[in-house]
Amino acid sequence: MTIVDQVTAIQACNACAVACDSCAEACRRASDPQALRRCIELNRDCADLCRLTALLLARESEWAAILCHLCARLCSDCAEECAIHRLPQCQECAQTCQHCADACEAA
Amino acid sequence: MTIVDQVTAIQACNACAVACDSCAEACRRASDPQALRRCIELNRDCADLCRLTALLLARESEWAAILCHLCARLCSDCAEECAIHRLPQCQECAQTCQHCADACEAA
Repeated sequence: MTIVDQVTAIQACNACAVACDSCAEACRRASDPQALRRCIELNRDCADLCRLTALLLARESEWAAILCHLCARLCSDCAEECAIHRLPQCQECAQTCQHCADACEAA
Repeated sequence: MTIVDQVTAIQACNACAVACDSCAEACRRASDPQALRRCIELNRDCADLCRLTALLLARESEWAAILCHLCARLCSDCAEECAIHRLPQCQECAQTCQHCADACEAA
């Protein structure tokens, strides 16, 4: 893991956490939140795991690489779920999640 | 994962987070904190991962089982490191971490 990859991954994780929190909240307020249930649930988990991954990367933890790998998997899952929904917050979140998955895999 | 195993794991994760936070702080204030560096670092990571695992278990997240498995591994690592040190907070933390590892594996 180079320092550039590490900083890129931290920034991607933080951006992804914000995007997931925003998407979850917008989905919760949508006209049919029940149809967006899995999207909301994955968004919450993804936001929380992204925050922990950014923290361990910043600490240069010996567990950072393992967390990065897991974070990439959850981000990919979340991106896939978000991409299903046509709402603008979901489409935007799908892109941010996929970018974070790529950054975490590279870190 | 039965509801009993789930509740047991949530309680073990929360107890482990507190024990790790306490151990890290006591080690930081010890006469030679440099000798306890890895113990402090693993304690911090373990506390944070335990809190996230408890959260995902409480949410009945589809990612809870994966987090539990990872948490058990980090708790075991942390227990092993703590057990090396003769300080009372480390010996107590080693036991709490091992209990949490077992509870997370069973969940």
